[in-house]
Amino acid sequence: MMARAAVGEWLDRPWVRTAIIGVILFNAVILGLETSSPVMARAGELILLLDAICLAIFVAEIAAKIYAHGLRFFRNGWNLFDFIIVGIALVPTAQGLSVLRALRILRVLRVISVAPSLRRVVEGFITALPGMGSVFLLMAIIFYIGAVMATKLFGAAFPDWFGDLGNSAYTLFQIMTLESWSMGIVRPVMEAFPYAWLFFVPFIMVTTFAVVNLLVGLIVNSMQDAHSAEDNLKTDAYRDEVLARLTAIEARLSSVDDTSVRR
Amino acid sequence: MMARAAVGEWLDRPWVRTAIIGVILFNAVILGLETSSPVMARAGELILLLDAICLAIFVAEIAAKIYAHGLRFFRNGWNLFDFIIVGIALVPTAQGLSVLRALRILRVLRVISVAPSLRRVVEGFITALPGMGSVFLLMAIIFYIGAVMATKLFGAAFPDWFGDLGNSAYTLFQIMTLESWSMGIVRPVMEAFPYAWLFFVPFIMVTTFAVVNLLVGLIVNSMQDAHSAEDNLKTDAYRDEVLARLTAIEARLSSVDDTSVRR
Amino acid sequence: MMARAAVGEWLDRPWVRTAIIGVILFNAVILGLETSSPVMARAGELILLLDAICLAIFVAEIAAKIYAHGLRFFRNGWNLFDFIIVGIALVPTAQGLSVLRALRILRVLRVISVAPSLRRVVEGFITALPGMGSVFLLMAIIFYIGAVMATKLFGAAFPDWFGDLGNSAYTLFQIMTLESWSMGIVRPVMEAFPYAWLFFVPFIMVTTFAVVNLLVGLIVNSMQDAHSAEDNLKTDAYRDEVLARLTAIEARLSSVDDTSVRR
Amino acid sequence: MMARAAVGEWLDRPWVRTAIIGVILFNAVILGLETSSPVMARAGELILLLDAICLAIFVAEIAAKIYAHGLRFFRNGWNLFDFIIVGIALVPTAQGLSVLRALRILRVLRVISVAPSLRRVVEGFITALPGMGSVFLLMAIIFYIGAVMATKLFGAAFPDWFGDLGNSAYTLFQIMTLESWSMGIVRPVMEAFPYAWLFFVPFIMVTTFAVVNLLVGLIVNSMQDAHSAEDNLKTDAYRDEVLARLTAIEARLSSVDDTSVRR
Repeated sequence: MMARAAVGEWLDRPWVRTAIIGVILFNAVILGLETSSPVMARAGELILLLDAICLAIFVAEIAAKIYAHGLRFFRNGWNLFDFIIVGIALVPTAQGLSVLRALRILRVLRVISVAPSLRRVVEGFITALPGMGSVFLLMAIIFYIGAVMATKLFGAAFPDWFGDLGNSAYTLFQIMTLESWSMGIVRPVMEAFPYAWLFFVPFIMVTTFAVVNLLVGLIVNSMQDAHSAEDNLKTDAYRDEVLARLTAIEARLSSVDDTSVRR
Repeated sequence: MMARAAVGEWLDRPWVRTAIIGVILFNAVILGLETSSPVMARAGELILLLDAICLAIFVAEIAAKIYAHGLRFFRNGWNLFDFIIVGIALVPTAQGLSVLRALRILRVLRVISVAPSLRRVVEGFITALPGMGSVFLLMAIIFYIGAVMATKLFGAAFPDWFGDLGNSAYTLFQIMTLESWSMGIVRPVMEAFPYAWLFFVPFIMVTTFAVVNLLVGLIVNSMQDAHSAEDNLKTDAYRDEVLARLTAIEARLSSVDDTSVRR
Repeated sequence: MMARAAVGEWLDRPWVRTAIIGVILFNAVILGLETSSPVMARAGELILLLDAICLAIFVAEIAAKIYAHGLRFFRNGWNLFDFIIVGIALVPTAQGLSVLRALRILRVLRVISVAPSLRRVVEGFITALPGMGSVFLLMAIIFYIGAVMATKLFGAAFPDWFGDLGNSAYTLFQIMTLESWSMGIVRPVMEAFPYAWLFFVPFIMVTTFAVVNLLVGLIVNSMQDAHSAEDNLKTDAYRDEVLARLTAIEARLSSVDDTSVRR
Repeated sequence: MMARAAVGEWLDRPWVRTAIIGVILFNAVILGLETSSPVMARAGELILLLDAICLAIFVAEIAAKIYAHGLRFFRNGWNLFDFIIVGIALVPTAQGLSVLRALRILRVLRVISVAPSLRRVVEGFITALPGMGSVFLLMAIIFYIGAVMATKLFGAAFPDWFGDLGNSAYTLFQIMTLESWSMGIVRPVMEAFPYAWLFFVPFIMVTTFAVVNLLVGLIVNSMQDAHSAEDNLKTDAYRDEVLARLTAIEARLSSVDDTSVRR
């Protein structure tokens, strides 16, 4: 028990945290150098060795944290995040899964869980998400309906763009971002189906309007949070003071009244 | 009379509503599978049968609602919405009107009228519209003027883009979304009419500015709604309390005064 | 004198205004039909006649207004706007100035000066402009500097895009709207000048940031206007009431004090 | 000592400042004319002479300022800005460093440091930056991770776009601006790697969301600044007044009480 607490306390010391951030940043540079073939040709072994050392340090740190906190370690979302990101690097990648090798750079994301200011920004992003849940759900419904309609209407004539639900959803996402929607997609489609704009123009308007509403919702929420925090405290303190003083005056008046009347 | 009320009450029961949402989502999956030709090749008849059953349930539900509420059914916008969306599927589509067949997926939109949280989002969208009416009208005027001018100026030289009012309006909509406006449209036009930018650049600026003003209007409105709702109630309660207390103190003082004077 | 006032009052009557709006909208349809060659082939003379009648009505209306108001007519911005827009149509266009003929559709803009709700929107736009003056000036400076630099650096190699100040400014405007900036312009330029991104990427960042600041300024201004209007009136009334009551209580207390002391 | 103060005071005189602004604007025109080869062919020597005179005036002004303020001159950011911008023009450019010649137009930026209204706008931009520091850092991390992943995954197959970290970062910036992201980049990549959208679509969503959050943060900050400034002063004055009056009433009541009791 004693040792656990000591390890936990040691991991929270400022210089240990700083050292971990240093290792993360050093590892980021190492993983960046890995992408350069001339560097790998000259010093490939050294770089792979340094990467392995960084990984070992991360594994040791997380093992120490699990030892210190026991199963409570997994209740914290950021710990889970670290655990998964470091764990990815331990999966054997010899079988040609070069994708897993590319995912190792995700380890740099650990800098977010370690640096409090970045952590707060990301937590701010995440707390903003639930408030937008209904709009996201609505957009998912619109995309599903749009994808089914586009596949049925244009799938046979334009299999690359609208061949199946996946292709259609991707193409509709492209259209929502307004990228080449007209010259690239809708004008060619309109040569085969002259009324195709009756589908695409409303789709653009509806999705853009939904995105705008997401944005407006975000702004209004942030504004209210910012507002209530500081201003309201001061206002509430003032109001409590005024009401307390009025109560005191009334009490005084009662006593004045009483003495006046009693005599 | 009794039966009507009973049917209406039965339709509002939670499990009936949940079952209807289930049927809608199941129908959405079925209509999605219809777009896949391998699935249709293997189990096409089963899928069409399931779709027909879902449709029958919707028709029965709406018929029951009409029976329960009578003509008042049609006074509610969401009921009308359901009625039209389900009605589309009943129009015979044998005559090659494949468009009507594609519209059947719109039935999935019923999930909005049934789920209260989605309903509120859409109602929020719709109530935001009237406040933007004047700006929309203004943009319609700008588009009409722009389309007439573009058709007169560039219609003869570029019939695909500006051949008639419809083409011009579509091309101007594309330009407003900034999609390929320069490399795709205006640079080619400027090779024939070197001063064409005098039309297009102001058009982009004016429409973008109008869109930005729509956005600003939306934000300001939402902010005021959010503000007044909660904060003002509290402020009003506080103010009423202060004024009531001051009145009470004045009343007391009058009586003190009186007793003082009377003696 | 009497006649002048009578004419002015007649022009302000609701039915006269409605009739003028009707003529404007009818004229808009006529000018739209003029763009259709089959319609012009069949009924061209009728359409040109109807257009001339509409124009005559506008000229008569403005003449009547000038008679009624004298030189004060020209002090109102909207009157000047009407005068110029109608005047354009009176310039002889026989000399092949087809541009002037296309400008006649601008007459439809008169609907803005006649309909109060549209007028208010446009006045809102215009009052927002001065507050953005400094940012506009800054952007003009950035554009001028950018155009000079781009012309000097890339003008010789890419005369179509950066051949002179005008071409460069147009291309930079295109880049600011993010239209084909990379695939269309910067990647080709980077093949000749590999470090061209050092010019273009900061240019995009600075201009985008300036545009965002324009937007933020607009939102903050609109919000404050909306705020102060209604809310503050109520707050000020409440505050005046509280202070008046406190003064009254103090006065009462003085008199109580006095009577107490006097006795 | 006396002379220094006199020079400093002379430089701050309104007509001297106006004259300097005049020289800057005149120099801007001269530098603009330098980009026109017909003008340079006819009057090249005159233009270069005028440019040299303008430069001499700027050098004299800055030398006078340094004489007047001594080393304190360099403590002011705007002075340093002027010093560097004018200094660029003095670096010899004979050795084919045409880039340095193009940078001379940056001298026009001096108009910002001289005109107070522009200065305030730029200072507003700069003070907004630190509050966005965390989000910028987060975006830098996302870009670095994205560039490393894209280089590892697609570098071998698409060396032009993802050949090294620099190319990848540039391409990801283009994708973040949504310019030709799908038709230009992701669709070609998806022909070689069908699941490439699993990288690019989340990348677009995350970076767009981060940019939106930057915007929201900017708006909320500006709004609060605007709010607190004026409104709070008035509120605080009112609150102080109410509390002071209540204290006075309490004091009065004490004395009334006392006299009442004493008798």
